Amino acid sequence: MAKYTKEEALNYHIGGKISVEVKTPFESSKDLTLAYSPGVAEPCKEIDGNADLAYKYTNKSNLVAVISNGTAVLGLGDIGAQASKPVMEGKAVLFKKFAGVDAFDIEIDEKDPNKIIEICKAISPTFGGINLEDIKAPECFEIEKRLKAETNIPVMHDDQHGTAIITTAGLINALEISGKKASDLKVVVSGSGAAGIACAKMYQQIGVKNIIMLDSKGVIHSGRENLSPEKAYFAIDTDARTLEDAIKDADMFLGLSKGGVLTKDMVKSMASNPIIFALANPVPEIYPEDVHSIRDDAMVGTGRSDYPNQVNNVLGFPYIFRGALDVQAKFITEEMKMAAAKALADLAKEPVPADVCEKMGVDKISFGKDYIIPNPFDKRVLFAVAPAVAKAAFDAGVTRVKEFDENSYRDSLKNIKL
Amino acid sequence: MAKYTKEEALNYHIGGKISVEVKTPFESSKDLTLAYSPGVAEPCKEIDGNADLAYKYTNKSNLVAVISNGTAVLGLGDIGAQASKPVMEGKAVLFKKFAGVDAFDIEIDEKDPNKIIEICKAISPTFGGINLEDIKAPECFEIEKRLKAETNIPVMHDDQHGTAIITTAGLINALEISGKKASDLKVVVSGSGAAGIACAKMYQQIGVKNIIMLDSKGVIHSGRENLSPEKAYFAIDTDARTLEDAIKDADMFLGLSKGGVLTKDMVKSMASNPIIFALANPVPEIYPEDVHSIRDDAMVGTGRSDYPNQVNNVLGFPYIFRGALDVQAKFITEEMKMAAAKALADLAKEPVPADVCEKMGVDKISFGKDYIIPNPFDKRVLFAVAPAVAKAAFDAGVTRVKEFDENSYRDSLKNIKL
Repeated sequence: MAKYTKEEALNYHIGGKISVEVKTPFESSKDLTLAYSPGVAEPCKEIDGNADLAYKYTNKSNLVAVISNGTAVLGLGDIGAQASKPVMEGKAVLFKKFAGVDAFDIEIDEKDPNKIIEICKAISPTFGGINLEDIKAPECFEIEKRLKAETNIPVMHDDQHGTAIITTAGLINALEISGKKASDLKVVVSGSGAAGIACAKMYQQIGVKNIIMLDSKGVIHSGRENLSPEKAYFAIDTDARTLEDAIKDADMFLGLSKGGVLTKDMVKSMASNPIIFALANPVPEIYPEDVHSIRDDAMVGTGRSDYPNQVNNVLGFPYIFRGALDVQAKFITEEMKMAAAKALADLAKEPVPADVCEKMGVDKISFGKDYIIPNPFDKRVLFAVAPAVAKAAFDAGVTRVKEFDENSYRDSLKNIKL
Repeated sequence: MAKYTKEEALNYHIGGKISVEVKTPFESSKDLTLAYSPGVAEPCKEIDGNADLAYKYTNKSNLVAVISNGTAVLGLGDIGAQASKPVMEGKAVLFKKFAGVDAFDIEIDEKDPNKIIEICKAISPTFGGINLEDIKAPECFEIEKRLKAETNIPVMHDDQHGTAIITTAGLINALEISGKKASDLKVVVSGSGAAGIACAKMYQQIGVKNIIMLDSKGVIHSGRENLSPEKAYFAIDTDARTLEDAIKDADMFLGLSKGGVLTKDMVKSMASNPIIFALANPVPEIYPEDVHSIRDDAMVGTGRSDYPNQVNNVLGFPYIFRGALDVQAKFITEEMKMAAAKALADLAKEPVPADVCEKMGVDKISFGKDYIIPNPFDKRVLFAVAPAVAKAAFDAGVTRVKEFDENSYRDSLKNIKL
């Protein structure tokens, strides 16, 4: 992880990180006549006749809202709408730099999920998609669910699905390496917030049956009271009460909880070829070197850029929305998310170009325990994930475009200036 | 007015007119660390401690929302949120190109003023100001009034105040040319929508007492029933019922109504040195050549670029928000709007540079009946209006900045890239 001082971080942010630029020529008085009154009436009339033409005559076709109320900002908690703005501008930076998507942050000073839903619905004509961000559980579940049902643009809460998609990609590859079957797997999830719940659900989709979830009170078992519906869904009959109980013979550990909670002894008690995603940041549930000091059959991933198998959401959201926007999708379906996970998994099996090795600080690397997920700076990710998502949307019939050819679409992505 | 075809207007709009760009360096993995997690936590923590630091560490300091529900789009009426998007993007283009202000359009699919107010309030942490646009009367009055009272950023409904500010500038100069006093003036306003009401109120502020307003039903007199509060405020005791009745001996006609409603005979019946702002677009209430064919003492302005004295809102909003943003104003006060009008009036008395004459299609022009308002393409407007507005805000004590020097601020405006 690149080191920086507080002063550097603050200086980097002076004046903010994103601006609004004019794309069209604006030199002559004729340009003014076209861009505004009276010429602008022509596209308005077209859209008034057919709302879908907003994708043609406005920036809706390339525009995602990054929406937050700042109630669950990574590492900072509930800092509110105003203080969350640097994070949301940062997310917009990533959308643009990784996939050419115009993203604009909207901070909503509101905690009532019904009102947030109402606001997002009302402003949705502005955008081609909505990326919900850093909204706390359980409100985030209701907000995403209802916005998916009640708007006609793709909506994704990245905190839930980003991590799910990328760890699912890693899991798919880990299964291949270890020769295990998803249906035989015992998975322990430490942390039952928005991301933990979404990961567990996505693992179920690829066939995982045995999942033990833990929250701050320990194992979520059938005897627990006052569980949210999302947690209750994962409550199981078990005698295990602690992480130490649960982790015995587990094939996979997913940590979305607190630095240091996974001990060497716990790792020792896991099944052969275990998968360990220790995603607490900056201090993971266990450091990779501590795992490797105990056993050499483990596959370890963290949220950090200075260890192998970095689980970084930037592997997902820019390309998922890229694909969804380019076919003018109405929703983000389960198929689209799974297509993204599979595309990532497949890409990790391709030979790694020299520039990517250099970015990873290695001479050479190939598919294996230290490389089950592509690197976030691998420029091939755009060309792998966006077309897979777009195709899945088209095949599911949730697009406004009537024709789609995956190869020519992939070619067209070369024209994006990054 | 520059001619164009429907096809040209549509082609100009393909893909939309504005994009989101990254302002900060984003080349190395260190940049990623600063722009997003974990470096971004530093500005978040600062803003969490002091909300005003959002002006320092985010783009709020240069960002205006252009907000509409599309219920009163110029020349098109109630076309709704989605179809109004090209207009609002166009407004953002003007903000950027005339004053370097980042403006982002938000189309709200909602007609209930209370809900629009709630939405704007909730998303206000995102922005440094709100420009309301093309929202129909009477809802626009309540929305602006309450947002001014209930947010802590400048809010202006440009349809109301833009025209008021610019025609007030023209009126101030017309009074000087004709040697009349505002308190002796008889003013007739044809059209009692948002702009007409705001213009009449601003004329009152400079001392005009005798104003006759007309709406689609004729003169607004004390005997009229079911008037909105805004119209009722202007109802007077009079026998006049029609524009023909009202216009006799009037010193000023302001038309915000319908092309052709002011006849030559009516113009003939006006007082000496009449001021005629015929702002219906593209066909004005009367064409300037028709006025001049009847009498040569009249001062005529229209909304069109191909006649003298163009009343174009772009003379106001970019610079008003420029000034308000640069002193981190909490409101747009009456003093700030009046300062803008006076700055425009004063600028029209300065010698006109050659490049502006060229844009106006004349060899030479100077202060007089055909030049009572600066030209919209005059680059000096920025340096005249923004400092005047910023100073008025500072003097009224409604700014977050604690120090302000008008001259050094004016100098700093040279650094804006337009």
